Amino acid sequence: MLHLQLPTDPRWAAFATQDLRTLLIDHAWCEHKAASNALAIIVRNPGLTSLVRELLQIAQEEMAHFGMVVERIEARGWALEPEKKDNYVNELLAFVRKDGSTEERLVDRLLFSAMIEARSCERFKMLSETVEDAELRTFYRELMESEAGHYSTFIGLARQYGGRVDVDSRWKKFLAYEAEVVARYGTQPEMHG
Amino acid sequence: MLHLQLPTDPRWAAFATQDLRTLLIDHAWCEHKAASNALAIIVRNPGLTSLVRELLQIAQEEMAHFGMVVERIEARGWALEPEKKDNYVNELLAFVRKDGSTEERLVDRLLFSAMIEARSCERFKMLSETVEDAELRTFYRELMESEAGHYSTFIGLARQYGGRVDVDSRWKKFLAYEAEVVARYGTQPEMHG
Repeated sequence: MLHLQLPTDPRWAAFATQDLRTLLIDHAWCEHKAASNALAIIVRNPGLTSLVRELLQIAQEEMAHFGMVVERIEARGWALEPEKKDNYVNELLAFVRKDGSTEERLVDRLLFSAMIEARSCERFKMLSETVEDAELRTFYRELMESEAGHYSTFIGLARQYGGRVDVDSRWKKFLAYEAEVVARYGTQPEMHG
Repeated sequence: MLHLQLPTDPRWAAFATQDLRTLLIDHAWCEHKAASNALAIIVRNPGLTSLVRELLQIAQEEMAHFGMVVERIEARGWALEPEKKDNYVNELLAFVRKDGSTEERLVDRLLFSAMIEARSCERFKMLSETVEDAELRTFYRELMESEAGHYSTFIGLARQYGGRVDVDSRWKKFLAYEAEVVARYGTQPEMHG
């Protein structure tokens, strides 16, 4: 799925759906962080016209998703709780080069974003096939499609603005790195747990 | 207007409209920062259900405004440029207590947000009466109304979640402080210049 090299441990969906409260609260923050991430990339690349336009659209969609998840949390009588660290995302961030050319750093940041979309997409698919609540199944199916679109946008922007960077080769390396990382996850009821 | 104690120097609108490019680029970042500010307040106050809901709505509106300003920049053949420091906003931030109770800090942060909305609203009104371009006049009139709504939301949230804090008294002090600050501005073609 989306070229991910290692599927999520199939037991993960059971862990996640058995603690829907933890899952939804964590999921809400994932959407919030995705919006903030898109806004941050805009700040760093103001002159890239179509990047600004496309990331603005993504930020708006992620914010809308945040609201939809919060609604579902509240509908169940729960409330948001403080955001927790997302160790998986922090491990991916270590792959993003802090040195290198402007283009290399931009490509890495876009591929980092694409990777989170890809893995989230895979996990939304699992949830859409596992969660008991019919409304939530449909919701996760819709989010899965949306994340797949965002994944394509990030990869497309990396190619568009990557200059001389070999985006495909970098993406392959990142996919291999992500497979090593995700192998250590799959047992917690969080989106990237 | 919205209880501001000192009107903007009437010459400001002339400075601003004579350098529409600088004004629009700066304005775009103001909308971006307003969205980020709303998202940041959500992160710090996840358990306050109606605050989360109302600030999410504000964040979405500010992001939409950001997009609208960017469109108008591009329509004129310009592009966004790197964000610059907003000295006025940084001076207002100095009024927000870093110590004090949770409620005091929340009230200050909400009043800080309300103050920026109030001053921006006043300046949008000036622009809506000064800018030559008819479409931009209408645009600024609409933004003025939107900012007035956000101002009321922030003040309302401060009252709702302020606990024992005397919000009206704190707001009066902040208005007096802001009047001292804004007296030093009014000569630059930026939204808070």
